[in-house]
Amino acid sequence: MAERVVRHFQEELEQLKTRLLEMGGLAEERVRAALEGLVSRDMTVVERVLIGDTPINQLHIEIDNRCFTLLALHQPMAVDLRAIVSAVKINTDLERVGDLAINIAEAVTRYLKHPPVKELIDIPRMAGIAQSMLRDALDAYVRRDITMAEAVLNQDDELDGLKTQVFRELLTYMLQAPSTIEPSLDLILISRHLERIGDHATNVAEDVIFMVSARDVRHHSADRSDGI
Amino acid sequence: MAERVVRHFQEELEQLKTRLLEMGGLAEERVRAALEGLVSRDMTVVERVLIGDTPINQLHIEIDNRCFTLLALHQPMAVDLRAIVSAVKINTDLERVGDLAINIAEAVTRYLKHPPVKELIDIPRMAGIAQSMLRDALDAYVRRDITMAEAVLNQDDELDGLKTQVFRELLTYMLQAPSTIEPSLDLILISRHLERIGDHATNVAEDVIFMVSARDVRHHSADRSDGI
Repeated sequence: MAERVVRHFQEELEQLKTRLLEMGGLAEERVRAALEGLVSRDMTVVERVLIGDTPINQLHIEIDNRCFTLLALHQPMAVDLRAIVSAVKINTDLERVGDLAINIAEAVTRYLKHPPVKELIDIPRMAGIAQSMLRDALDAYVRRDITMAEAVLNQDDELDGLKTQVFRELLTYMLQAPSTIEPSLDLILISRHLERIGDHATNVAEDVIFMVSARDVRHHSADRSDGI
Repeated sequence: MAERVVRHFQEELEQLKTRLLEMGGLAEERVRAALEGLVSRDMTVVERVLIGDTPINQLHIEIDNRCFTLLALHQPMAVDLRAIVSAVKINTDLERVGDLAINIAEAVTRYLKHPPVKELIDIPRMAGIAQSMLRDALDAYVRRDITMAEAVLNQDDELDGLKTQVFRELLTYMLQAPSTIEPSLDLILISRHLERIGDHATNVAEDVIFMVSARDVRHHSADRSDGI
């Protein structure tokens, strides 16, 4: 590529990263707000989450377009190609996190119709971990930092452990008092939505590892697939 | 592209489609087996699902490699470019369906430790719908058939309706008899895993619609994004 074209491509790639960070920020903020609504039992906050997905959906489309334009116009190779295809996948993951914020807000809406089952400790902790995993995974993407991405994968176990703990504790409540069954089910659902946000952060981290280090792996596998 | 190169590219694209169908077949078969284990209360079938994810994981890597190789070597444009990026996304969706089959098998393993809560009718129906959505979405991809893809989107409502019905029915059982709480929770989880399989089929169908019809939408959006 001519120098001017390369510079233009790198600028576009930087803008793509900025947009992905913006998208991640929006997704994270929606999860934070849904949890704030749960903890403070404030339906006005929850309702903002329920109706506020237009910006994230618009950004989702814009980022996808940027990726396709970059692929079509610049025909990038190696790590740049992987960075852009990863961006398409990460964009999908972030959009799903936005959807999960809505799922959480829906469960919170039902939950707030009942008296509180218990003081919430582990679920806000799960939310904190999921949000930080998401932030770190995106930072790892922007910096192409494998070590950081691997640290995200390790945090996932903590999230799974808390999910199991939440489940066991709520099961005890349900067995003791049938009136807690319905609201407990919603707390269990919320904890599973948070676990899935962690899964999406894990996907992003895995994409980063693939993007940065894939060369050898890909070479090996390309050999396998009929030597294309 | 020279004629020979074009023909080679089209052959590779056909092979990619074949592999995706194969991957879809494996994923669907694993879901079917997990449900068979549930309905017939046969742990040997369930155990095969729990340990049998190597072929699908290998195919996942192979398909990803094929996509990157096609992008790098042939630098496709327009619908071919979208077909290959869609294949990357669809491949991810199918791998998740394989994971969900394991999640279902895990829930079935726990469920079978208790006496049956009820005769299972809606959950096998949900599984049937989810499997047929997946199959149709992949057929729509291979045939580049928008009408077929749109039909998949419509089936998703039926799946959501059944999920709500399963939930309400099991809630009644749980409220009446605490001994059914634990196994009922696993049935609720299974119904949600099936719903998510439907969501993945929906993602595939949406990718097909984008792949086939995106030209105008894309053009419009490319205009928006700083005229790259």
